[in-house]
Amino acid sequence: EPFGPPGGGARPPQPFVHPTATGSLSGVVVSVKEVEPPLQMGVDESYELTVPSSSGTVQISAQTTWGALRALERLSQLTWWTGKGTAFTVFSCVITDSPRFSHRGVLVDTARHFMPLPSIKMAIDSLVYSFYSVFHWHIVDDQSFPYVSTTFPELSAEGAFDENHIYSQKDVADVLQYAHERGIRVLIEFDTPGHTASWGVSHPELLVPCYTNGKPNGARYGANPLLNSTFEFMGKFFAEVASVFPDDYVHVGGDELSLGQGSCWTTNPDMQAWMKAHGETDYAALENVYEQRFVNVVSATNKSLIGWQELFDNGINLPSDFVVNVWKGGWQEEMSKVTAKFRTVLSSPYYENYIENPYSNSGDWMGYYTTEPLNFTGTAEQKARVMGCETSFWAEYIDSTNFFSRAWPRAAASGERFWSDASVNDPVEASGRLHAHRCRLVARGIPAEPVEGPSFCRDEYDVQYNPPF
Amino acid sequence: EPFGPPGGGARPPQPFVHPTATGSLSGVVVSVKEVEPPLQMGVDESYELTVPSSSGTVQISAQTTWGALRALERLSQLTWWTGKGTAFTVFSCVITDSPRFSHRGVLVDTARHFMPLPSIKMAIDSLVYSFYSVFHWHIVDDQSFPYVSTTFPELSAEGAFDENHIYSQKDVADVLQYAHERGIRVLIEFDTPGHTASWGVSHPELLVPCYTNGKPNGARYGANPLLNSTFEFMGKFFAEVASVFPDDYVHVGGDELSLGQGSCWTTNPDMQAWMKAHGETDYAALENVYEQRFVNVVSATNKSLIGWQELFDNGINLPSDFVVNVWKGGWQEEMSKVTAKFRTVLSSPYYENYIENPYSNSGDWMGYYTTEPLNFTGTAEQKARVMGCETSFWAEYIDSTNFFSRAWPRAAASGERFWSDASVNDPVEASGRLHAHRCRLVARGIPAEPVEGPSFCRDEYDVQYNPPF
Repeated sequence: EPFGPPGGGARPPQPFVHPTATGSLSGVVVSVKEVEPPLQMGVDESYELTVPSSSGTVQISAQTTWGALRALERLSQLTWWTGKGTAFTVFSCVITDSPRFSHRGVLVDTARHFMPLPSIKMAIDSLVYSFYSVFHWHIVDDQSFPYVSTTFPELSAEGAFDENHIYSQKDVADVLQYAHERGIRVLIEFDTPGHTASWGVSHPELLVPCYTNGKPNGARYGANPLLNSTFEFMGKFFAEVASVFPDDYVHVGGDELSLGQGSCWTTNPDMQAWMKAHGETDYAALENVYEQRFVNVVSATNKSLIGWQELFDNGINLPSDFVVNVWKGGWQEEMSKVTAKFRTVLSSPYYENYIENPYSNSGDWMGYYTTEPLNFTGTAEQKARVMGCETSFWAEYIDSTNFFSRAWPRAAASGERFWSDASVNDPVEASGRLHAHRCRLVARGIPAEPVEGPSFCRDEYDVQYNPPF
Repeated sequence: EPFGPPGGGARPPQPFVHPTATGSLSGVVVSVKEVEPPLQMGVDESYELTVPSSSGTVQISAQTTWGALRALERLSQLTWWTGKGTAFTVFSCVITDSPRFSHRGVLVDTARHFMPLPSIKMAIDSLVYSFYSVFHWHIVDDQSFPYVSTTFPELSAEGAFDENHIYSQKDVADVLQYAHERGIRVLIEFDTPGHTASWGVSHPELLVPCYTNGKPNGARYGANPLLNSTFEFMGKFFAEVASVFPDDYVHVGGDELSLGQGSCWTTNPDMQAWMKAHGETDYAALENVYEQRFVNVVSATNKSLIGWQELFDNGINLPSDFVVNVWKGGWQEEMSKVTAKFRTVLSSPYYENYIENPYSNSGDWMGYYTTEPLNFTGTAEQKARVMGCETSFWAEYIDSTNFFSRAWPRAAASGERFWSDASVNDPVEASGRLHAHRCRLVARGIPAEPVEGPSFCRDEYDVQYNPPF
């Protein structure tokens, strides 16, 4: 906390006094006990970082390579240019550090708007800079299916925005490697049974036909729970997903299936017949038919599952290692219920795709920063089932033109919430760090926007603009 | 309106049928009656543009070079790649066009946050693409004084954020030339007597000392209306401004002087004595003392003046060519009053630095688009005194990290309002054009953000990211 880059802030800048050098560092020695153990939920990211007070070497020791990466990132943030020649300053320090939560995610949605590969990589770097650990890739949705499946290439051939708005297997492998090298898990999400319109472009038979006045009206909605073919398809598709994505977990979605009065499923004669035969009146029963069979199918791929809270809320019989991703309002009550039995990742209070007029609330980041994820009723055992949290950037109004300025530095505030101890929660103290961090991001080429009023960074964002004429 | 680039939009994209070529164009012939007449308020920007229906040349005829530039910009927006090789398509058309208002401005504030020179140039290009004509450069304010004055170099030496956050005379000349070549007027603003804290860093004597308990408390506020030295300084400074900036107009600010109970001026014995001697009770009388003398001083530099509406509201004796810049709420009533005597530029309803949560109001641009600037009570003669409008981007929360995604395409909506006939005001029709224009901007390297929900552009924004390691 006493550290930060010089310059910046409101005018006149606080004078930054570089310490009188008491020694010069000759290098960094990194000691790791486990070299590149599987990068999975719960992996050890702890580290010790020692900068000597006289000449010598910086010492980093960590249980795993991933912890050492965090230490190197921390060291980079404790180091700054003196403003003279090639001299840099680091204060002497001994830091013993580890994250509070293992799962520190940012959700990126490439279905509402496509993010080209360089933007994805830049996003992953920006996660690293704020000590996130998970790139939650909401890769497809109703609007588009950019993932190029080897098993069902028609899904993207017909369901992507166009032939250039796709992620090939090579692209995906590139992202996976890029993220892995930086200690970032890629949590892939394929959301069913709702949010599947783009699947239906090439595979209409997957979705339930909607009826008007007793006749199919051409529309289809939601993965069909009554056809064996649906689950045969899903079995093959998720087997591919299991082989392509190395993470232990796959996110299976499961949110927001519309089943209200007059909705598609309620108009379909097959659905109606099933409801009658089973004496059901709430179409959620059919959602459960889908989910139960679907969960069994995907579990058979030897992946562990994470899914939106509806799967828990609807009473699906879930595997014991299932992680419930809480996203709705009333999250405290939900967390109390969920953690009685399951592990969880909390997303609800960190939907940072929502924005406010900064003139009305100049620090919406403070709200995210001060929202304590364990602030719900539960035993220590229950609290221990919170694997982490996610900051979400649903992309209805986001693409690579504004992802970075919208995400940063706001998501750095929640990032600190997810890493640091609950007691580190003073937004006034955090404010100075946030400003310094914004300028750090800008200096690294990430256009993190000014969120705290008039200020400057020593190095302003370089638009790298080449006039077209 | 029937034109637009192919691709983009929601999936599935509307198929774009390229016309069967009926000829090939061999060039563009531009005829101009007045070559580079002074680029000033009211300059003729009209043009005729003819694309023949068979082979031949595109014909552009314009009264002035500036009109021809608008025609070339329009032509560029009617031209698009066929998707094959080097073939481009233009529909045959005859367009007779001219702007509704001469003064179509974007206010850029480089005092709350600094904009590096490449960002300024990129901003000017982005103005051109949306048919703006004025770069209103709010160059200094309380927070910083980046303008490097030749007469008083200490103003920026001590009042800028730091020595790198400045606009040298060379930088300013560069901006002026860059803008002029593109038909963009640069309207420079130096705001007094309020908003002058940064002037006071090097010239504290310019500002009124504030008192607490009968003693100076170290603070100062507002250009001193009672000292001859204030006006000698302003006379020299604005003489320099008049020589550096070629526009007929200089913006002299004049807004938001705080004079309420307990404010600085009310605590100062000299001010108190003057008030008593003149039998005044409202300190606005002292503001008027400043403004009247100041207006006379700046008018002596042979510039015409534009200033914020307070100058009119306070009953200052203004030159007949003064332009009142209306920025407060209640603008319709104000416009009725102002235009009874003066020309005006309307800013109030186009403060696009204000933003909303797009999930609450996914089209705040529609509000700007449908706000008709002549919708106030007044005669035709009064309406004719409206020289134009400005879209403002006050920079409390804006710098080069987010200026472009915040400004575009939203400011293109107001840009069309300022150029096109009042009858072109259907936001639903405009929506398609706005999407096409966003994609056009993105293709030109301007990160215009998605404001209308899920969509794509054929060419997405290229972040041009070079991973640091």
